[in-house]
Amino acid sequence: MTLDATTAAASPLAIICGGGSLPQAVAQAVDRTGRRCVLFAIRGWAEPAAVEAFPHHWVDLGRYGRFRRLMQAEGCRDVVFIGTVLRPSLTQIRLDWETVRVLPDVWRAFHGGDNHLLSGVGRILGGHGYRLIGAHEVAPDILVPEGPLGRCAPSARDMADIAVALDLLRATSPFDVGQGAVVADRHVLAVEAAEGTDGMLDRIADLRRQGRIQTRPGVGVLVKAAKIGQDHRFDLPTIGPKTVDGVARAGLAGLAVVAGATIMAEPQEIVRQANAAGVFAAGVRPPQAE
Amino acid sequence: MTLDATTAAASPLAIICGGGSLPQAVAQAVDRTGRRCVLFAIRGWAEPAAVEAFPHHWVDLGRYGRFRRLMQAEGCRDVVFIGTVLRPSLTQIRLDWETVRVLPDVWRAFHGGDNHLLSGVGRILGGHGYRLIGAHEVAPDILVPEGPLGRCAPSARDMADIAVALDLLRATSPFDVGQGAVVADRHVLAVEAAEGTDGMLDRIADLRRQGRIQTRPGVGVLVKAAKIGQDHRFDLPTIGPKTVDGVARAGLAGLAVVAGATIMAEPQEIVRQANAAGVFAAGVRPPQAE
Repeated sequence: MTLDATTAAASPLAIICGGGSLPQAVAQAVDRTGRRCVLFAIRGWAEPAAVEAFPHHWVDLGRYGRFRRLMQAEGCRDVVFIGTVLRPSLTQIRLDWETVRVLPDVWRAFHGGDNHLLSGVGRILGGHGYRLIGAHEVAPDILVPEGPLGRCAPSARDMADIAVALDLLRATSPFDVGQGAVVADRHVLAVEAAEGTDGMLDRIADLRRQGRIQTRPGVGVLVKAAKIGQDHRFDLPTIGPKTVDGVARAGLAGLAVVAGATIMAEPQEIVRQANAAGVFAAGVRPPQAE
Repeated sequence: MTLDATTAAASPLAIICGGGSLPQAVAQAVDRTGRRCVLFAIRGWAEPAAVEAFPHHWVDLGRYGRFRRLMQAEGCRDVVFIGTVLRPSLTQIRLDWETVRVLPDVWRAFHGGDNHLLSGVGRILGGHGYRLIGAHEVAPDILVPEGPLGRCAPSARDMADIAVALDLLRATSPFDVGQGAVVADRHVLAVEAAEGTDGMLDRIADLRRQGRIQTRPGVGVLVKAAKIGQDHRFDLPTIGPKTVDGVARAGLAGLAVVAGATIMAEPQEIVRQANAAGVFAAGVRPPQAE
């Protein structure tokens, strides 16, 4: 690292914004620390409502040259990348020359799966003198702590389901599958992949309506865990009020995530919804360290 | 084994029928060999149309005593269990006394997951002097052979996707998850659990319509494989025309299953549909023996 970290920390923080409410949550948390932030909202991903309260620029995938010029004009050195990401369709991207120059590197990263894609982009930015940091480093209070967030806590039976799910997610970890699974009574009901967590929870609710889930409502857990070796700067699992709502509608007992390695969007709303629905939302420590 | 296998083979074959068209396919295949078969159609699972062409009795879960008496009256010693199974809701089952006597064994099996459940039932029947055999033993032509079934064959790219899927299914094997996965361009799009293969394929079609799958149509494979250590007498993966239709609607290149360890329902119809849709349906040998 040739960069002077002190200088970088004094500079405005660049937040590259994907979709969802997390970019706003991170910007607010950073704002509370007194550091200025500049949002780079990715067109097609970022939501206008999530970025408009802060200084921001709309940027396009494939326009790396423009992004670099804006970064320089704003005096940014530290970059955080946060928010939901859609796999871009290459045909929809118009490229500028600077992007063409880095494209071989991006291409290599792209073909290694999501996690590699983001790590690859991180390496490229790092090579250009920027410092990629995790949202949790600039806003540590967005991480789920250990223990239940609301009034409800997992039972011994739930803990057994959580253990099965963590084992399963460890086994699927090398395969660039999703980061979630639903286990009820030690029986795996769903494994997350391209449909995402919300899609998986909708499926459980549907299967239950169709009478295809025999464990009774109130039994079963959603578990999310980062892939082993995942670069925490880019792609930590995330929960929000929508996740809690999905868990309740799926008739599960609650949700568990890895404490200190999961981002929570709108924590007060998570607690309120969990208490209202009588489900737990808890940070747990996996049996083995990563 | 105290049973005289020759005597048993001369006796009528009892086919316990779950749902779908497979019980009929097996009964027809056994019929062609000249052996008499008696179908025991499980109420709520078996389809009347699939059993009515053969001598049959309707039986209820939880009425093991009646089943035993019918078996004795028919002179059956060999039993095949075939067809789709729903996890029974215990509250819907009325028990007879013989069932109550074997219930502790069933209960133990039940709590080990699907595969254990069926193996447990197998052990119980074996203990009562019956011989549980696999459908493929009495009707070997229902197994998928090695190579493509229709005109289309997997490409090198498809073979790479198949290899990823087989690796993934080996990793999830200890967890009593489903037996299927969809991989496109080495990226895992879906892992099957409680929704079943058809449900998983519907999901891929939906995600594609929503623009959430970026690999283009015609790329990607469905792979089904038996769990490692699975008892082949009870729960071999199955494909049928509906599977091929689902693969085509999901925009995949084709489907691959483990040759010699997968049952096919209506093979002529599988070939016809695969050729019409331009997808492959192939039996493959996994890289490592089980």
